[in-house]
Parts: sequence; structure tokens; C-alpha cells
Amino acid sequence: MSISSLQQALARFADARDWGQFHDPKNLILALAGEVGELAELFQWLTPSEAKQIMNHPASADRVREELADVLGYVLRLATVLDVDLERAVLAKIEINNAKYPVEKAKGSAAKYTDLPE
Amino acid sequence: MSISSLQQALARFADARDWGQFHDPKNLILALAGEVGELAELFQWLTPSEAKQIMNHPASADRVREELADVLGYVLRLATVLDVDLERAVLAKIEINNAKYPVEKAKGSAAKYTDLPE
Amino acid sequence: MSISSLQQALARFADARDWGQFHDPKNLILALAGEVGELAELFQWLTPSEAKQIMNHPASADRVREELADVLGYVLRLATVLDVDLERAVLAKIEINNAKYPVEKAKGSAAKYTDLPE
Amino acid sequence: MSISSLQQALARFADARDWGQFHDPKNLILALAGEVGELAELFQWLTPSEAKQIMNHPASADRVREELADVLGYVLRLATVLDVDLERAVLAKIEINNAKYPVEKAKGSAAKYTDLPE
Repeated sequence: MSISSLQQALARFADARDWGQFHDPKNLILALAGEVGELAELFQWLTPSEAKQIMNHPASADRVREELADVLGYVLRLATVLDVDLERAVLAKIEINNAKYPVEKAKGSAAKYTDLPE
Repeated sequence: MSISSLQQALARFADARDWGQFHDPKNLILALAGEVGELAELFQWLTPSEAKQIMNHPASADRVREELADVLGYVLRLATVLDVDLERAVLAKIEINNAKYPVEKAKGSAAKYTDLPE
Repeated sequence: MSISSLQQALARFADARDWGQFHDPKNLILALAGEVGELAELFQWLTPSEAKQIMNHPASADRVREELADVLGYVLRLATVLDVDLERAVLAKIEINNAKYPVEKAKGSAAKYTDLPE
Repeated sequence: MSISSLQQALARFADARDWGQFHDPKNLILALAGEVGELAELFQWLTPSEAKQIMNHPASADRVREELADVLGYVLRLATVLDVDLERAVLAKIEINNAKYPVEKAKGSAAKYTDLPE
């Protein structure tokens, strides 16, 4: 299924409830921050290795799927109301990052990320 | 283009650089919070009406597209490393919300959202 | 009451429960993002003017106070585990911003914030 | 120095620049999410043990102090514009949590946090 089909499904859901009036960019970003926060709460006290195993626990796995869906849902709504073509945006960003982090220099290194000595 | 094709493009980018080692769930959620923060910064001092017009300003529009791409990129990476089917997750969440917010009760109301009297 | 007294009260609470083991920097930042998300959810669908009136509604006011306390609590815990003197850090940042945004140039302008034409 | 003295220093800074007009609750929460995001970015690719050592690296330590100051600054501005007494709010929350997580039950356990089996 394409990204735009998912966007249309979400638009139909919002339109049927007249919720478009609430979905302006600033509100949607607050809502997105809210959902990212709920996702963070599922992982905050887990060790890295517990975090990797989270999907083996059915109750946690359901919550992860639901929070990821909520996060993606607001990203898609934002793109809809701002009229951003997400597929093109992601592919363009990969191009930019390909130039910025050439494989031979970036390989296996977190040096891009931090000023910590390695 | 399907969501899973975009996920594959991002996985190839990360794998070519051996960055999979950094992409564990907790790190990716911190990175996601970082990108949502950058998106928020583009809008934080705008009025609601300026925010709706942001895509009319080419320099701002480019940054919005780039930050939305970064946000979506980390959502897709998270789904990949957690093995979550995003399309199914979003459609399942729409089902849940259809039951939770029936059109006739939810129409035009933010009552779902808040305990403020209306 | 000083900031450091509040930090001590929070440290005593955590230490009595052996929760220091969970309070490493990355976990605390995830927890902070979680609490900022809960705060955002209280405001996400309100108009700017409803948002300014939120404390007039006792139930909402209680939740705002509680979420702000949770956010501040994790900021204080982070400062404690990273050994950052928050008071000095804030005063130093005011100095930096005084130099960066001189009153005569910054007065009444959001120009610092955005590339939108004004 | 008391929390309210820091709030006053920040209020003077904003008032001198007529920035109070931008500091409404929703804008401040977006700004807070922005600063939490910048803090997250400093830690996102570090291992837990690198994260604990971050203050040993002067350049990173400076950035951590600055981002923590920015985060706290917006928490204090929010409390000011919402007229929340932060000290009382944190002490009240500690009381609530004392009742919710009695020492004998909560000791050394992350069970409060998660539905993962232990």
C-alpha cells in the first residue's frame, strides 16, 4: 500500500468527524510530540538488550505497534495538511545524506554524530 | 511507492555504512525525538495562520520537507528494527479509533481530547 | 527553596527505592521526552486563547501542575546524574543570549526565529 | 538561588525584548520539545557507558550544560506564564509518588514501569 493511500484513509477518518479544524500544523506537531513521548515511555527503563526483545512480549508488542501507528499517523496528517510529498522528501534526503556521508568515510563510525574522541 | 520500499532504501543506506549497530530501539527513539524537536523549532514562534502558510516560503518549505523526511526516516527505521508492519498497524489503529470515536458522537468535537468544559 | 534542595529531595526519593540504577542519562532523556509529551497532549487541541485559560479549569490545572512537576523532576535528575550546576548554567545562558540578542535589535521581533519575511 | 529568582531573571530578559507576546503556552511547549530534542541529539548514538562519561569531554560538556539550561529555561517560562508554583508542584508530586510507590514494594524494581515479565 502506498503512503498516499494511508494518508487518504486518515483524511477520510478526520473529515468524517470534522476534525480537520483541529489539525493545523502546530497542533499536529504537539500531538506528534505527545505520541513520541508515549513511545519513549515504553522503552525508558529497559536495558538496550531488553529493548531489542520487546516484541517478544505480546502486551508490550501491542503497545509498541499502537504507538508507532499513532506517531506515523500524525506524520502523515502533517504531510497532508502541509502538502508535502513524503516519498519524494525521503528519497531526496537519502540523496543529500549520500553526498554528506560517503560510504568510505562514514563506514562503522559514529564520528558524524558527536565530538567525543573515538 | 510502498512503505516497505522506502524502508528498504533506508536499510540499504544504513547497512552500507555499518550503522545498524547504532540503530537500536532506544537510540532511534532519541533520534526521533531530536528530529521532532527540529520540526517543532520551525513552527514554535509562528502564529497558527503563519504556520499554515509556511510552505509558501521556499527556504522554510525546504526545511519543513527535510525535517519531515528525517522524522519519517526514523519512524521507518524503528519499524524495521522492531519488525512492525506499519501499514497493518495504522489500519488496525483506524479500526480501533472508528469504534472509540463513532462519527455521530465525535463530529466536530474536541471533547475526546480534553476535560475543558465546552 | 533552592534548586539544589529540590534535587536532594528527588535524589532521596530515588535512592530509597534503588532507582538510581535506572536513572542513567539516556533513560532520563527518554523519560523527559515522555513527560513533555504528556504536557503537549494537554494543550494539543486547544486554541491559543483556550491554552492561556487552562488554569481556570481545576481538573486541567491539576494535570498541568503535575506534568510540569514531572518534566522539571526529570530535568533535575538529569542535572544531578550529570553533575551540572543548573543555576550557573541558566545564568551563563542568559549572558550568552544577552550578547546574541541585544535589546535594541531583538525588540519585539521574531526575526531571530525564522526565515519567514516579516 | 531560588527557582523564582531564576524565573524573574528570565522574565526580565524576555520583557526587555517584548518577547512575552511569543511566549504563550503552546509556543513554549513547542520550544521545550525543540530543546529536549537538541539534548537527545547529544546522546542518541552514545552507549550507556559513553553517555555517563559525557561530561569528561569539555566540548560535549559545554553543549550539555547549554541544552539543559535551555530546557530548564522553557520549563521556567511555562511555569511563569501559567502561574504554576514549581516548588510546590514538585513537592506535591513527591508526596503522590510516595503513596504510589511505597519503598518496600518499589525497591530496586522497574515493575512500575513496564509490563515486561521480570
